[in-house]
Amino acid sequence: MELVEALNWRYATKKMNGQVVPKEKLDYILEAARLAPSSSGLQPYRVFLVSNKDVLQKIRAIGYDQSQITDASHLLVFAAWDGYSVEKIEAVFDRLSTERGLPKDAMDAYKQQLWDIYEPLGQAWHANHSARQAYISFGMAIAAAAEQKVDATPMEGFIPSELDNILGLPTLGLKSVLILALGYRDEENDWLVKLKKIRTPVEEFVTTIV
Amino acid sequence: MELVEALNWRYATKKMNGQVVPKEKLDYILEAARLAPSSSGLQPYRVFLVSNKDVLQKIRAIGYDQSQITDASHLLVFAAWDGYSVEKIEAVFDRLSTERGLPKDAMDAYKQQLWDIYEPLGQAWHANHSARQAYISFGMAIAAAAEQKVDATPMEGFIPSELDNILGLPTLGLKSVLILALGYRDEENDWLVKLKKIRTPVEEFVTTIV
Repeated sequence: MELVEALNWRYATKKMNGQVVPKEKLDYILEAARLAPSSSGLQPYRVFLVSNKDVLQKIRAIGYDQSQITDASHLLVFAAWDGYSVEKIEAVFDRLSTERGLPKDAMDAYKQQLWDIYEPLGQAWHANHSARQAYISFGMAIAAAAEQKVDATPMEGFIPSELDNILGLPTLGLKSVLILALGYRDEENDWLVKLKKIRTPVEEFVTTIV
Repeated sequence: MELVEALNWRYATKKMNGQVVPKEKLDYILEAARLAPSSSGLQPYRVFLVSNKDVLQKIRAIGYDQSQITDASHLLVFAAWDGYSVEKIEAVFDRLSTERGLPKDAMDAYKQQLWDIYEPLGQAWHANHSARQAYISFGMAIAAAAEQKVDATPMEGFIPSELDNILGLPTLGLKSVLILALGYRDEENDWLVKLKKIRTPVEEFVTTIV
């Protein structure tokens, strides 16, 4: 299925039926998330694939009781770095140098340049910038799910600090940003499934400067 | 081409050859951006499709002289609302009610609920939240371009306030967030084209909670 067709097929599923998404489809969705581009390739975010029922119940309790969280097959939690650091930047570019067979110091100037830009911006800026990158990866997961005819509900509606505690994110230097319920629509009981998709008309959405 | 295949094909193109992207491919990329999901469906961002050479020169000058900006066929500028307002929320849900054939007041409670959440968060929060939504749409444009075998360079490296002035965004209540150069790779002269794509290994990227 082409991307535009997939995006027309998908909708923010309001009621899921509990059916399990096969592993190969989950792997595909996670691979799309992993391949997403990010600023300087740092990928300053991680994904948690949650299917433990107790954990999902706890997340639903701090997720405004949205039923998709527990009716889903799996829940993806996108969590971003709580800040950039020399060590984190080093780790990314050391791997890049190794995998590309470059001299160990090949990326030193670039790493330094990056840190010289990031350091003065401060940790709140870092965390926000990292979170923004996670939205691109989140979008890729949404697109991949739709392509695989897996339903999904993109959600920002939860208490991030509570979710961080449930998953033990503070000790990992991560902050939860977004969640994506994956599963299958309950056609009978989903009030949104038959309603027309509404978007800003293209002539209002796009301005052409020729 | 499947999404994961497309994401493996693409890379942040460093040198473009000036070849023009056909209109139907541009329309397809913009349609994917337009169909992206956003928080409460507000789509608090707009896209500018720029091919005017003088305007592109001006953008390159405030875009750290990145050559793709002028070697691209077209440049997409993603600009987010500088804040939420009752009027903007009304406009979105009035259109939704009309297009879905709902009574004119059907969405009144939801609109009010949304504004009650947003208003106390303040304009800086609004602008940031709007910008985050734009990243999802940006991701869809990147994916769509790759699917169409159109090269693209995602960029955050420009001076937003300067770009806002070039495009007259302040009077439109918009702030530039991201730019995406669209075109075709110059295989001979792009240092990145033949280098291996590096991503965080899946076992480090994904944590499974069963």
